[in-house]
Amino acid sequence: MSKPNLFYAQSGGVTAVINASACGVIETARQHRDQIGKVYAGLNGIVGALNEELIDTSRESAKTIAALRHTPAGAFGSCRYKLKSFEENAREYERLLAVFKAHNIRYFLYNGGGDSQDTANKIAQLSLKQGFPVTCIGVPKTVDNDLPITDNCPGFGSVAKYIGVSIREAGLDVASMCDSSTKVFVMEVMGRHAGWIAGAAGLASEQEGDAPHIILFPEIAFDKARFLKKVQACVKQFGYCAIVVSEGAQNPDGSFLADAGSKDAFGHVQLGGVAPFVAGMIKSELGYKYHWAVADYLQRAARHIASRTDVDQAYAVGKAAVEFALAGKNAVMPTIVRGGGSRYTWKIGEARLSDVANVEKKMPRSYISKDGFHITDAARRYFAPLIQGEDYPPYKHGLPQYARLKKVLAKKQLPKWQAS
Amino acid sequence: MSKPNLFYAQSGGVTAVINASACGVIETARQHRDQIGKVYAGLNGIVGALNEELIDTSRESAKTIAALRHTPAGAFGSCRYKLKSFEENAREYERLLAVFKAHNIRYFLYNGGGDSQDTANKIAQLSLKQGFPVTCIGVPKTVDNDLPITDNCPGFGSVAKYIGVSIREAGLDVASMCDSSTKVFVMEVMGRHAGWIAGAAGLASEQEGDAPHIILFPEIAFDKARFLKKVQACVKQFGYCAIVVSEGAQNPDGSFLADAGSKDAFGHVQLGGVAPFVAGMIKSELGYKYHWAVADYLQRAARHIASRTDVDQAYAVGKAAVEFALAGKNAVMPTIVRGGGSRYTWKIGEARLSDVANVEKKMPRSYISKDGFHITDAARRYFAPLIQGEDYPPYKHGLPQYARLKKVLAKKQLPKWQAS
Repeated sequence: MSKPNLFYAQSGGVTAVINASACGVIETARQHRDQIGKVYAGLNGIVGALNEELIDTSRESAKTIAALRHTPAGAFGSCRYKLKSFEENAREYERLLAVFKAHNIRYFLYNGGGDSQDTANKIAQLSLKQGFPVTCIGVPKTVDNDLPITDNCPGFGSVAKYIGVSIREAGLDVASMCDSSTKVFVMEVMGRHAGWIAGAAGLASEQEGDAPHIILFPEIAFDKARFLKKVQACVKQFGYCAIVVSEGAQNPDGSFLADAGSKDAFGHVQLGGVAPFVAGMIKSELGYKYHWAVADYLQRAARHIASRTDVDQAYAVGKAAVEFALAGKNAVMPTIVRGGGSRYTWKIGEARLSDVANVEKKMPRSYISKDGFHITDAARRYFAPLIQGEDYPPYKHGLPQYARLKKVLAKKQLPKWQAS
Repeated sequence: MSKPNLFYAQSGGVTAVINASACGVIETARQHRDQIGKVYAGLNGIVGALNEELIDTSRESAKTIAALRHTPAGAFGSCRYKLKSFEENAREYERLLAVFKAHNIRYFLYNGGGDSQDTANKIAQLSLKQGFPVTCIGVPKTVDNDLPITDNCPGFGSVAKYIGVSIREAGLDVASMCDSSTKVFVMEVMGRHAGWIAGAAGLASEQEGDAPHIILFPEIAFDKARFLKKVQACVKQFGYCAIVVSEGAQNPDGSFLADAGSKDAFGHVQLGGVAPFVAGMIKSELGYKYHWAVADYLQRAARHIASRTDVDQAYAVGKAAVEFALAGKNAVMPTIVRGGGSRYTWKIGEARLSDVANVEKKMPRSYISKDGFHITDAARRYFAPLIQGEDYPPYKHGLPQYARLKKVLAKKQLPKWQAS
């Protein structure tokens, strides 16, 4: 047990490229067998460490690990589980460190958003205090693109591309039929707190009249009268109106648009139902025939149309995280740094976890047009490079072939964990 | 005006590949300039003929016409407009023939479903009676796959592929998170009258435990108790349950499942809302956290992930329609004929429009598993070849580049049409 092992975990909502980061971590670790023993991956994220359910990735073939690069979602399982503060639940931290000790884990790579970077930071500090120092490196991931310091977050570019492609295609569909049929199309996209994803949809509109005609952002309080007027003007001018609405679109009082809206047949307020709400409002007030779509998980799992830039960056942050760890860095996260020239370039940078943890990057107001319904040229310049390039997965029998892992667990060394 | 002209129109709901048929028509006609003068396309379908709005496709470059092969939706515009019977509205038929005469149109190619083939058939007969014979050839198209005689309908294979890819990807997403989060995912797909599209989703499930676990077909009366039991069993066995529901799923009394369901905030019954309805039912009865998606137009416009087989066949029926016309055939439609061997082969066949018109091909019961929740091996053998192959459109700036037509109209010769 001389060589230290590495523990990698996926956290929070998954993306089309988080496994590309896993691939970067594992392939890079395998290139440094002299310094890193095994790479363990948490079964269902950090919960796997608490339960001592450690997937032994050495049991997966090089081919399977390579296939992670083109496999969406969280191949080892992810979780929505945030460790409480040390004061509130010291037992959890002690358990984590006990599991790390039992398996000689000296590197912890946590692949997630702001919460996860906070956790990784705490574990770095605590492990030092307890005399079993664990090198903790964050690996950025979130479709929401809301991490600070990094220019963008792996996961975002692929959602952005999917949304851009989808609204362009659906827009053409509506345009074909609007003379005698559907005149309004509403597509709902993710982004509870910020309009990054909704904004990226604006790239699909390259010439006057192109879809989307209207984008509803969480950042702009919904103004019903102005919105309906704009819809009507679009239908008059272009024959139809294609709308992208963020699930986080808000009323002037800060409540979600959808919350005031539809209930299902069982009386529950519908989650993710802002598209039918907006479509129904238009029908009710303007009488236009409508259709709506809610892409939901389809958008963040859409590896089939991932952005090559995003895949490359996701792999690169995974690789960099291992290299940081081996270089003796600690409590840091690789970032994406955009070059300054007119041609898009990027390189890997570095941020301290303490600067990343629990800070949410909002979309600048300068990215939203003055009338609040579309994006500006500044936004286009920011978004455009992130969706560049295609990176198609291999197909068999007409369907994409994604990695299937064996997920062999390491032998348990400790008593069973009892969550409090 | 010696050479006769050809009129082509797109009809009904559009598809990812109907423009590939248009491409086949126009490119083939251009190869026979000695026999065919101009190819006119109806602006917004048959309505364009009534309004004498004839797009002169000779004004579009060879490059633009070639780009139709990879462009989704109806590039010339389509419509939901069914001609009444001759007895009910003789004026419409007389107007059509007057427009055809005024523009020396002797070939009419109608690209649509069963209704359109009926119309084409009527015009063939009527034109003959009136001493201005117009050769009428149908070009099959429908995502619903419900035309008789032909083995399958161009448009269907690409929707099927999109749905298969999407449920596979979203299924992996849910599988990643189900330990601590969403346990049930419901995806709604098109198919008001038959479960062809829903059935094709079953291809994504290749091994036990793969999504989708349950498919709800219009053909099988919904049995709430059995359904909920199956959902629960899936969650217990696999940790989650991925469901594909056809928009046409029905209660035992024949009413649509969604009709009994949710209303929007304005009191309207929601169109296309069967996914939230089913998801809400599961939450209410079993308590599972859920997500749902409604792909709507995204699925039938998804040219970015079209089936190559489908694209090839769509082009081939367009080409064959022109060749049929030049061979002196009339009131017929090219069909897809499947070869008998174990390796999939297909060729172009021929059906009389009178045999195609207004006949709806249902999915055989033998394609649905005994318990009614999945597809059989017979269904797999039928569906699998139709989604084979990828046929990616070109990309620029990270987004697919679709044809933009000039749509120059031919000079009008007749007084304005007054719809009655």
